[in-house]
Amino acid sequence: MLRNKIPVGILGATGSVGQKFFSLLANHPWFEITALAASKQSAGEKYHKLVKINRNDPNENSYGNFRISECQPDLPCRIVFSALDASVAGEIETLFAENGYIVVSNARNHRFHEKVPLLIPEINSDHLQLLAHQSWSGGKIVTNPNCSTTGLAIGLKPLLDTFGIEAVHVVTMQAISGAGYPGLPAMDINDNVIPFIGGEEDKMEREPQKILGVYRDAKIYQADFTLSASCNRVAVLEGHLESISVKLKSGASEDRIINAWQTYSGLPQKLKLPSAPKQLIHYFSDDDLPQPRRQRDLENGMAVSIGRLRPCPIFDYKFTLLVHNTLRGAAGGAILNAELMVAQNLIAV
Amino acid sequence: MLRNKIPVGILGATGSVGQKFFSLLANHPWFEITALAASKQSAGEKYHKLVKINRNDPNENSYGNFRISECQPDLPCRIVFSALDASVAGEIETLFAENGYIVVSNARNHRFHEKVPLLIPEINSDHLQLLAHQSWSGGKIVTNPNCSTTGLAIGLKPLLDTFGIEAVHVVTMQAISGAGYPGLPAMDINDNVIPFIGGEEDKMEREPQKILGVYRDAKIYQADFTLSASCNRVAVLEGHLESISVKLKSGASEDRIINAWQTYSGLPQKLKLPSAPKQLIHYFSDDDLPQPRRQRDLENGMAVSIGRLRPCPIFDYKFTLLVHNTLRGAAGGAILNAELMVAQNLIAV
Amino acid sequence: MLRNKIPVGILGATGSVGQKFFSLLANHPWFEITALAASKQSAGEKYHKLVKINRNDPNENSYGNFRISECQPDLPCRIVFSALDASVAGEIETLFAENGYIVVSNARNHRFHEKVPLLIPEINSDHLQLLAHQSWSGGKIVTNPNCSTTGLAIGLKPLLDTFGIEAVHVVTMQAISGAGYPGLPAMDINDNVIPFIGGEEDKMEREPQKILGVYRDAKIYQADFTLSASCNRVAVLEGHLESISVKLKSGASEDRIINAWQTYSGLPQKLKLPSAPKQLIHYFSDDDLPQPRRQRDLENGMAVSIGRLRPCPIFDYKFTLLVHNTLRGAAGGAILNAELMVAQNLIAV
Amino acid sequence: MLRNKIPVGILGATGSVGQKFFSLLANHPWFEITALAASKQSAGEKYHKLVKINRNDPNENSYGNFRISECQPDLPCRIVFSALDASVAGEIETLFAENGYIVVSNARNHRFHEKVPLLIPEINSDHLQLLAHQSWSGGKIVTNPNCSTTGLAIGLKPLLDTFGIEAVHVVTMQAISGAGYPGLPAMDINDNVIPFIGGEEDKMEREPQKILGVYRDAKIYQADFTLSASCNRVAVLEGHLESISVKLKSGASEDRIINAWQTYSGLPQKLKLPSAPKQLIHYFSDDDLPQPRRQRDLENGMAVSIGRLRPCPIFDYKFTLLVHNTLRGAAGGAILNAELMVAQNLIAV
Repeated sequence: MLRNKIPVGILGATGSVGQKFFSLLANHPWFEITALAASKQSAGEKYHKLVKINRNDPNENSYGNFRISECQPDLPCRIVFSALDASVAGEIETLFAENGYIVVSNARNHRFHEKVPLLIPEINSDHLQLLAHQSWSGGKIVTNPNCSTTGLAIGLKPLLDTFGIEAVHVVTMQAISGAGYPGLPAMDINDNVIPFIGGEEDKMEREPQKILGVYRDAKIYQADFTLSASCNRVAVLEGHLESISVKLKSGASEDRIINAWQTYSGLPQKLKLPSAPKQLIHYFSDDDLPQPRRQRDLENGMAVSIGRLRPCPIFDYKFTLLVHNTLRGAAGGAILNAELMVAQNLIAV
Repeated sequence: MLRNKIPVGILGATGSVGQKFFSLLANHPWFEITALAASKQSAGEKYHKLVKINRNDPNENSYGNFRISECQPDLPCRIVFSALDASVAGEIETLFAENGYIVVSNARNHRFHEKVPLLIPEINSDHLQLLAHQSWSGGKIVTNPNCSTTGLAIGLKPLLDTFGIEAVHVVTMQAISGAGYPGLPAMDINDNVIPFIGGEEDKMEREPQKILGVYRDAKIYQADFTLSASCNRVAVLEGHLESISVKLKSGASEDRIINAWQTYSGLPQKLKLPSAPKQLIHYFSDDDLPQPRRQRDLENGMAVSIGRLRPCPIFDYKFTLLVHNTLRGAAGGAILNAELMVAQNLIAV
Repeated sequence: MLRNKIPVGILGATGSVGQKFFSLLANHPWFEITALAASKQSAGEKYHKLVKINRNDPNENSYGNFRISECQPDLPCRIVFSALDASVAGEIETLFAENGYIVVSNARNHRFHEKVPLLIPEINSDHLQLLAHQSWSGGKIVTNPNCSTTGLAIGLKPLLDTFGIEAVHVVTMQAISGAGYPGLPAMDINDNVIPFIGGEEDKMEREPQKILGVYRDAKIYQADFTLSASCNRVAVLEGHLESISVKLKSGASEDRIINAWQTYSGLPQKLKLPSAPKQLIHYFSDDDLPQPRRQRDLENGMAVSIGRLRPCPIFDYKFTLLVHNTLRGAAGGAILNAELMVAQNLIAV
Repeated sequence: MLRNKIPVGILGATGSVGQKFFSLLANHPWFEITALAASKQSAGEKYHKLVKINRNDPNENSYGNFRISECQPDLPCRIVFSALDASVAGEIETLFAENGYIVVSNARNHRFHEKVPLLIPEINSDHLQLLAHQSWSGGKIVTNPNCSTTGLAIGLKPLLDTFGIEAVHVVTMQAISGAGYPGLPAMDINDNVIPFIGGEEDKMEREPQKILGVYRDAKIYQADFTLSASCNRVAVLEGHLESISVKLKSGASEDRIINAWQTYSGLPQKLKLPSAPKQLIHYFSDDDLPQPRRQRDLENGMAVSIGRLRPCPIFDYKFTLLVHNTLRGAAGGAILNAELMVAQNLIAV
């Protein structure tokens, strides 16, 4: 391990989000993987036995012989990235926090704990003030939102700041990678759309209000707009597309909205965090953009792409938004959360 | 030709909608194809040279040696089904009407002519009263709506009748067959969604109000609800899926809405027209239906499938709707229009 | 139950092949489903709870309330169609045969039992003479080949009869439905080809020689040509495509080969069995046919399509062949086997 | 332009191969684009009007305002990369060669000119000796093979050198990008395989013998093995997969074959050319690799992946091979050709 890297572990390292954490962290300038943990059944196996690592990437290859640990709070690291399934994440993450670990979680379990930030570093970095009020023994828990929510919240934030928002109507067309692995049978999704994703609409209708809420006195006061979400699964490998209509409070015009998106920037851009996109929101004036396959990898999958802003006969405006669901919307977003905490000196090392 | 069948022709017989007309009419109990017309360049060729007919279907095979005619009003038939491109449909359809033909058109050109019905037989058969006020010399023109509109209008009609509608917000996920042939390059649409279909949103935002309007004194008074449409193309071969939110006027509940759909029936059902579905609207209570591949062929592609009715935090209710775009939404819909006209004795033969 | 229908059961009725059996048998003119059997865990449940039946098909719907039985030889039927997994099929099928049932199996377990026909009714109906030599107490077992083998054997039979075969080289591009349900994750197969199907190459390299072998004195003498198979999975829903090269013994020309295919006919055609295609092999002279999506449903999926016959620089000739894997290659093939047995009076009822 | 870069132009810069040349050359360490040429109709337009350049890549963006030239031999460059269509490539490439340009062509027209190398730098760099015998006035023409041939020839070369080859049988499953843009309609290829690619089998059956031939006395003596190719198009975006059987002359074993592939290296590796893969051939011992989506981008798409080596009952061995068709098999291969010529001092600048 390099002397100046921070030792990190991955909880749930063998699942699909866990593997995404692995490949992003295997090459990370600040973090060094020192533990790969998974279920009891996997413990003791070499990582490359259970996961197809990229042997052509020397960074990944060097971890192939790591033995998988159990998810017990004796891992030799400071930060744990949690890619655990919701069925076990709550308990295990709490256990790690109580044992002094920094838990950076992609799971949904702690997202609505009142002292846990539901963090998107460009949007609500001030919510990290909640950490001072967490009561786990020395440890901390930070969560990132659901993949679809992440894109939506980023697209809404500049509108909220500039014009105010009254209502948001969103219909998603989500990639199959969002369902993990094995996820959807090809027999179900090929030449098809599935108009249902379990639990997704609830998450999308609740999370943005906390993310876009206001921190005051150790508490988040939720944003008060109404939100309706309808979620569909399409035969796309990566990249969630969203058809969004918004009712704003005042003063919007197409030019002003595009300007609000294009000039929006946050702490990660200012601090030049390793995973931060240079430009958070890319606006496309082409008729038919953004498209999942064409824009999802923009800025290493960490930017959000928007296009097709136009008047809505019912709401004020409608537009199309794209977010890379497993990068910005999951592992990449969580790593950016950890980078921000490091840069803010919130992680004693 | 059988003595008792009505001679019909197809204008634009070599295109993708024209071919759909062909295969439906080659087996039709009331109609007999007596003319296949296309552009000047195709005229004189045998049909099977330009179009892959199904030689295993004796009905189709018997037409393979037909010579293609030009689109001139000297075709030996009473009805012409128009699958012409909008760039030429207006002029040619008018020419045929002026020469005494019944023009049953799938093209958009005459849809907003104030004396031309925009017809869905189960919804607005009374609009056929407009025919008496058309002033072409003996001929008549009837149109069917855009494919996405057709499904939407069918889903809305029972709601309009029972509760009244104030606003409709629809986001579509449309099949590639809607773009005709060759249509979309696989390099564009595979592993992708294209959030734009030229002209489609305009059609969807204008056509339902005419279809659902009221006929009085030789005029259609448009329905007065507001409509917002966002149209996307997905990698599905056939079947347009629509995420719909509606604001109703009064008295709705989930049970009453489902009941309104399931009990809705129109003249085609009463008259048992050959192409009419037995049940116009099928409601599915499964979490994840309707789906394009699973329900599109229901009742030979002439039924509309609906599911996922649930409250909408912004509007009153939201639901998912599926329509077979090239059957109910194009050729099949037009043929049902012609069947209704025959059954109503509007076509002198 | 209709008085004159033969009572049949399905073993493994809830799996993907079992469901295909169900939908074909629910509408069958000679057979009546009287038992649906599956694993102990499913036993007692209503069929429609575990399987999505087609409620719009009155034939299917009438079976929805059937209770699933265990696979014990007390089912109220004469024939059992086995769609069991190979891990349990051997034992259960033997048990049923020993208890007097006619077992018509799609599983691989008994295919190489020396007294069990590996039957394709058009190819080797004389192999049914083996039944007289089976020694289960009153019951009988008949198997159909692997899906890819079925198409291959049908394409080869007329060549073997007319010219003799020395060697066959086949590369397959197989549909995902061949892997059952859930089968392949969309994350694995979309925008991809998987050049491996476990056990498939072995089956394809062994089964054709038995099918095309000669029955004499209670024994099958295997055909003696060499066969090499390479199997690939492609993102197609139904229909296995095969690139085949053959070395023939004598007298072949393109015209003679095509003629051999087109004039080939078997007992099912002569007896007009309900599931028999009128024409077993359809030859297409178009450059680019057969194609899975365009020809798979030919003759209700029971015909085999061939095209692109041309000289091979190494072998004599090469061509492309298509077979519907879940119809002709699985459930449909097995049902045709049973029909032949009934027509041959091999099933006392 | 940087002082030490070689000025290059692209002929046919707006087509799909031309665009691939553009994006590879816009970032090239040795070459600088100084001309973008296309058909007369496009001439005069800004490049970004006709082609979607990547504005986020500063290298690409700087060329967006380039005006497109006609394909006339007055372009301000030393090398022209030809991505021209075969219908015009022959004449235009000759014209440029006669006017002193180095023509590095991806078109098929000059591939069988007896003084033109059909070059794969790792395989037959000695064929560049032909250049001294070309008789165009100062200019030179070098070609790269068809995309499928490129992968095949690379896989065969170590076998030819080590064991000798008697016969090769190949069946391809080729990506849709090989058909250019717009290429295949999604309505044709989705949920389908097309067992035909015009002209492809001829190219694959002729080109390898020249590539693998021996240079002596200003002439190429073709390799003398027999080759049979069957070409199929599958719904994959990039990456041609090939099922190959080979008959070798002597001394082969699985271990020796794998060793021959893994130790094979050529001049580009020795000279560390910018586009050369470090390891030309990657052998995978996994059951189910290589796969187009998983391995196509290996070494920036310039390596060839092989797996599944096993005995063939007819030939000696069979295996599966993957090549990135638009990188190694087209634009990337051509650029590597030019790099080799520069490194060999064959281009006076």
